[in-house]
Amino acid sequence: MKLSSVCWFVLAVVPAIAAQSKTESAVSPEGMAHLAGYTADTSGIERSWEKKFQQGIAPGNIRENMRRLSARPHHVGSPYDKDNAEWILTKFKEWGFEARIETFNVLFPTPKERLLELVEPAKFRAKLQEPALAVDPTSNQTTEQLPTYNAYSADGDVTAPLVYVNHGNREDYEQLDRLGISVKGAIVIARYGQGWRGIKPKVAAEHGAIGCIIYTDPKADGFFEGDDYPAGGWRPRDGVQRGSVMDTDYPGDPLTPGVGATADAKRLSIHEAKTITKIPVLPISYADALPLLSALKGPVAPESWRGALNITYHIGPGPARVHLKVVSNWDIKPIYDVIATLRGADDGQWVIRGNHHDAWVNGADDPISGQAAMLEEARMLGELHRQGWTPKRTIIYCAWDGEEPGLLGSVEWVETHLNELRQHAVAYINSDSNERGYFFPGGTQDLQGFVSGVARDVEDPETHLSVFQRSHLFSIAKAKDAEERKDLRKRKDLVVTALGDGSDYTAFQDFAGIPTLSIDFGGEEDGDQYHSIYDDFYWYTHFIDTDFVYGRALAQTGGTSIMRLADADLLPYDYSAQADAIAKYEEELEKLLKDKQEEFAERNLQLQEGVFAALTDPRRPSVPPPVETVPPYMNFAPMKNAIDSLKKSSERYSKIIADWQAKGSLPLSTHGFESVNAELLKISRLFLNEKGLPERPWFKNQIYAPGAYTGYGAKPIAAVREYMDEKKWEQADAQIPQVAQVIENVAKGIGKAADTLEKAIAQAH
Amino acid sequence: MKLSSVCWFVLAVVPAIAAQSKTESAVSPEGMAHLAGYTADTSGIERSWEKKFQQGIAPGNIRENMRRLSARPHHVGSPYDKDNAEWILTKFKEWGFEARIETFNVLFPTPKERLLELVEPAKFRAKLQEPALAVDPTSNQTTEQLPTYNAYSADGDVTAPLVYVNHGNREDYEQLDRLGISVKGAIVIARYGQGWRGIKPKVAAEHGAIGCIIYTDPKADGFFEGDDYPAGGWRPRDGVQRGSVMDTDYPGDPLTPGVGATADAKRLSIHEAKTITKIPVLPISYADALPLLSALKGPVAPESWRGALNITYHIGPGPARVHLKVVSNWDIKPIYDVIATLRGADDGQWVIRGNHHDAWVNGADDPISGQAAMLEEARMLGELHRQGWTPKRTIIYCAWDGEEPGLLGSVEWVETHLNELRQHAVAYINSDSNERGYFFPGGTQDLQGFVSGVARDVEDPETHLSVFQRSHLFSIAKAKDAEERKDLRKRKDLVVTALGDGSDYTAFQDFAGIPTLSIDFGGEEDGDQYHSIYDDFYWYTHFIDTDFVYGRALAQTGGTSIMRLADADLLPYDYSAQADAIAKYEEELEKLLKDKQEEFAERNLQLQEGVFAALTDPRRPSVPPPVETVPPYMNFAPMKNAIDSLKKSSERYSKIIADWQAKGSLPLSTHGFESVNAELLKISRLFLNEKGLPERPWFKNQIYAPGAYTGYGAKPIAAVREYMDEKKWEQADAQIPQVAQVIENVAKGIGKAADTLEKAIAQAH
Repeated sequence: MKLSSVCWFVLAVVPAIAAQSKTESAVSPEGMAHLAGYTADTSGIERSWEKKFQQGIAPGNIRENMRRLSARPHHVGSPYDKDNAEWILTKFKEWGFEARIETFNVLFPTPKERLLELVEPAKFRAKLQEPALAVDPTSNQTTEQLPTYNAYSADGDVTAPLVYVNHGNREDYEQLDRLGISVKGAIVIARYGQGWRGIKPKVAAEHGAIGCIIYTDPKADGFFEGDDYPAGGWRPRDGVQRGSVMDTDYPGDPLTPGVGATADAKRLSIHEAKTITKIPVLPISYADALPLLSALKGPVAPESWRGALNITYHIGPGPARVHLKVVSNWDIKPIYDVIATLRGADDGQWVIRGNHHDAWVNGADDPISGQAAMLEEARMLGELHRQGWTPKRTIIYCAWDGEEPGLLGSVEWVETHLNELRQHAVAYINSDSNERGYFFPGGTQDLQGFVSGVARDVEDPETHLSVFQRSHLFSIAKAKDAEERKDLRKRKDLVVTALGDGSDYTAFQDFAGIPTLSIDFGGEEDGDQYHSIYDDFYWYTHFIDTDFVYGRALAQTGGTSIMRLADADLLPYDYSAQADAIAKYEEELEKLLKDKQEEFAERNLQLQEGVFAALTDPRRPSVPPPVETVPPYMNFAPMKNAIDSLKKSSERYSKIIADWQAKGSLPLSTHGFESVNAELLKISRLFLNEKGLPERPWFKNQIYAPGAYTGYGAKPIAAVREYMDEKKWEQADAQIPQVAQVIENVAKGIGKAADTLEKAIAQAH
Repeated sequence: MKLSSVCWFVLAVVPAIAAQSKTESAVSPEGMAHLAGYTADTSGIERSWEKKFQQGIAPGNIRENMRRLSARPHHVGSPYDKDNAEWILTKFKEWGFEARIETFNVLFPTPKERLLELVEPAKFRAKLQEPALAVDPTSNQTTEQLPTYNAYSADGDVTAPLVYVNHGNREDYEQLDRLGISVKGAIVIARYGQGWRGIKPKVAAEHGAIGCIIYTDPKADGFFEGDDYPAGGWRPRDGVQRGSVMDTDYPGDPLTPGVGATADAKRLSIHEAKTITKIPVLPISYADALPLLSALKGPVAPESWRGALNITYHIGPGPARVHLKVVSNWDIKPIYDVIATLRGADDGQWVIRGNHHDAWVNGADDPISGQAAMLEEARMLGELHRQGWTPKRTIIYCAWDGEEPGLLGSVEWVETHLNELRQHAVAYINSDSNERGYFFPGGTQDLQGFVSGVARDVEDPETHLSVFQRSHLFSIAKAKDAEERKDLRKRKDLVVTALGDGSDYTAFQDFAGIPTLSIDFGGEEDGDQYHSIYDDFYWYTHFIDTDFVYGRALAQTGGTSIMRLADADLLPYDYSAQADAIAKYEEELEKLLKDKQEEFAERNLQLQEGVFAALTDPRRPSVPPPVETVPPYMNFAPMKNAIDSLKKSSERYSKIIADWQAKGSLPLSTHGFESVNAELLKISRLFLNEKGLPERPWFKNQIYAPGAYTGYGAKPIAAVREYMDEKKWEQADAQIPQVAQVIENVAKGIGKAADTLEKAIAQAH
């Protein structure tokens, strides 16, 4: 489901300079940099295989993969979804992988009835249909297309006054409170953007709304951004964003939380499933939204709420009244994960790569742009294998089904194979949609140095700089001030940003404690048709990565990463980078507390001074905000002490590695390497707490997690931070010791790995 | 012409807390605050007359004044313009003023031919006409309305490709350079807003454009802001902003720079007049702009350039080609200033009040909302006079003609009466359009304490707070950060912001060196019809100050100010506030230099690093900016030393006043007061340098001036600052000593006044 490219771009993160990382590589006597985790010998061999790999990636193959996979609609439960899975299976086998399909049975609702009409002050019935376009050859596959809808919407039939709620986030309702407007008993209309779409009906229902409409304002991805389709690549007036509105309690099949949705799994009833919305929801185009929004009166929306339609945006409530009816077929459907293994010399450690294959409709961009590139990677790895290369570790390529409804394929697979994965998994590398432009990885920062090294070795197809360098220079250009530019110019690595739950990495990172990367290129889009029938081969090849050179760059990045991880003598984790990132997350918590203390103290002072009363305009009545209790101080000391331990042990580990590299990265004994790797493999699991987050037990990772009210967006150290967001200061404070304990455990784990490494180096020399 | 209310609002300035100013008033033994510049006795008498004055101001009279004056179009040269002047004259006389009309003969071009058509890729002819509306009874006075046009546009007949240039400021052309787009030989289309409209054709011509179209985007004052007329108060699709595009070399009649345009004045030929544009210009509605903008291709405009039309904003050039023809009747027209005097006990000092009476069409808001209130002030002062009040000083009320074309009435009058004014004028208080909301004065800060005191004594009609307190609390609410809020909470006064040349205060402040205030209420507008036929009585009384309670507040503020200045024993100037403001302007110059040094050094570094090359997108080609010479350090020391002198002498003067007040504000001898006032009167003239600004000799004031490329907006210390804006660092540096000398002269003038005051106090006790 991945964030649409436009939204994605605002999360774009900060990369780093081209200096060599001390922990990542060292210069050999001959002047050639060793790869991190490699000896002088193995580094040279690895580089020559990687070079062969990169040279073999063919944009034409990626194009043909996309043509095949996006030729017909292939959502969960559709014939072409299964057909694609079988074709992918055949290909993996053809390329020399051991491959199989794993099937799960998941709840996947599809539309039975959809109705939206304006009943007052005028009559209008929404079309709820994306028209076929003559130039676009797959847009007319009407019988196979899923209608426009939001999966996991509650069934309902409601008629009520309409209220415009901007993006429908919690802050928007605070603004409505200031205007004295309630949505109780109303149907809300929210615009897409600013967070996971499932948050909109969730927050609306929490405020008493009985229905929710979501429309795509042309300001987000329509004519405001550029010429619309088919003249340009941007969403046309009738374009609709489908999508899941599953709640954020847990991802995966709503009926089998925490366990694989196998044939014989114990299932909740639909009634018991917590992740289905409380009120009916329906997505619409702006052409359908325009008569509704135009019929609203009441206050003019604040400036930041206004979109690009040529109307005055009013909030309501009413006089517009709308009738909304949503009924689904609540069926169990099979999903088909294709799992392909290239067995390594040592089968005890697994390097995993994944990208989903299901789409909402034809899905050329989402997800086939990533899937097509990933398959080309796999083909070329098979080719190298035929030429004599065998990876040290086992490589597993996964083509997930059911990502769009709620990460179903990856979550059910991870839940099913949890114990094996915790025992064997070295890393999981995810991709999804891929466009054109810059490389900004997300993930766990133990892979920050590693992925930066890979990015130095992949060429940007437009500028012929390394993708590292191009992203680094982009960050300098976009830095917010001189201080940020100064920091960037000193950095040796790209910044790897924390991930929430936007794609199939979620279960690996948040449930299984596996080091994770999310990779893609973007930022130079000439359009967006996210979750529309127009996200298809014609559109993609006219407006996005038209010659598939960024598909090639993605395959080169993904495949090089997989090879380099699979072949390393020592697993190339960089704990110092991760310790720095965690220290920053902790500082953010302290800053959040301070900001809230100041904000509420200031607000209370202004209430005393009469500021809000002085600003009341009798023609635009407003309600002063409530007095807020100023947050008490919290005890961050345990976490800060734990982070100090973490920094010390990770710096110690880094120093041992650096010294080993400085002395020529001489080989350890096989047992020596194995004993260190065995310790390293355990470390990321130590971030888990089996009890999970306080109010979301599925999410085990105590550092990396999505927000309950952001969904896509990460909320690092969520156990503490989410309570702070809820203004539950005592509960937040009470979570600090257990998070600190987790960090202490990681510090100890790193210390143990350092001991083992020291011993192994001493024995070798 | 005053900034449209929307634009005006962004300049809204920062007021201050309700604590009593030590230099402004003192508490008498009975606990009653003395007015600044008054003794205990005279303060009490003054307060009782002011109370009577304020109670006598009747909103119904202001309404009737507006109905009469806006009943028909009354632009320069129209029959109703003269009729209004004669009616105003009669009224002043009726109220007991000595009144006369002073006539000047000015160049005032009116439309002869106007043509705008799209000739490629399709044909479209612009309507150039605001339609009458059935509900609006004066909108159909078609034969008397001035057609939509820009006065002082050059004549021309041009056909060329079209380029969209955003607001058409210099920064916009830098952006065009980055995109590799030239306007040489093109016709530009700019949107209204962000500075004086005359800057748009000026900068366009400097870049080689041969024609200029200016349109009103609905984002500025149309449906984006609120419901449009007549459903709401905002500019409708066919609404056009007329207006002068006179260049900024000097205001007033283009043919008589520096001297009054009397019948026998020596005149330039039209050909010699520097303030007429170099290329033809025409303003249009967005309905007329839409087909033109829609026909542009080329790069998509940067996000900040996009308006609220439902199109993708492209820049061009072309394929749109347009044909623009503008021909004017270049006639000399008479203008009628009404000058009304209420003779004071001492005729040697004059307190002057003004507001223009001419409009572009009916002008209910601009300027009649201010004029109608000012006339009600004058009526009530006449009434007080009948009841026995005679001001200590002479009061002069001025109803200016010809403000809209270029401040003609006030500039020609000041040029004609320059010597008398420099000898006698205590202060000039201007108003113009008046709306609803907050009071934010502009002017010279020697009146900052004074106007803050007046604002404490006028009641806001909505909240019943003082207008001072309401503005103060508004500033706290809108402050950008905690530091600004802290500063505001410590302030004792409103902030008086420096004025550029937006209305009739210009000649008084910039040419004659007279302390100046500009007063109005605004910020709660429910619409804007700036310079349109719809700015009329029907519109104003439905959407703006519908019950004229802010008209009453304006009359109360203006009249109380005039009375309090006219009756003061000691002129209530506050030099400390002015010294603080000038110190701040100097700091801004130093910051500007530092910012430019850093900006250019950073840019040059990024050019070296290859940042711009790395960000090139082959589908959106861009041109790296040029290498810039990093500015050298400048010697601000002379100015800083002078400001230190100014601070010392003004603090000394303030302290003497404070001590006098602390001891009960006992009366000085008549000669004592007169001798101090005579010294005080000279001080503001010392800001003048008769040579004027380096490239604009008409502007004599070395602290207060508009920018050559802002027009409306002030550029304090323009002699230095404008060269800095031009990157002429050496010339800027060379100006510092003469500005410093001016400041030293002022410091000495204040010192002399302090000596005189000390002596007078000593003699009295």
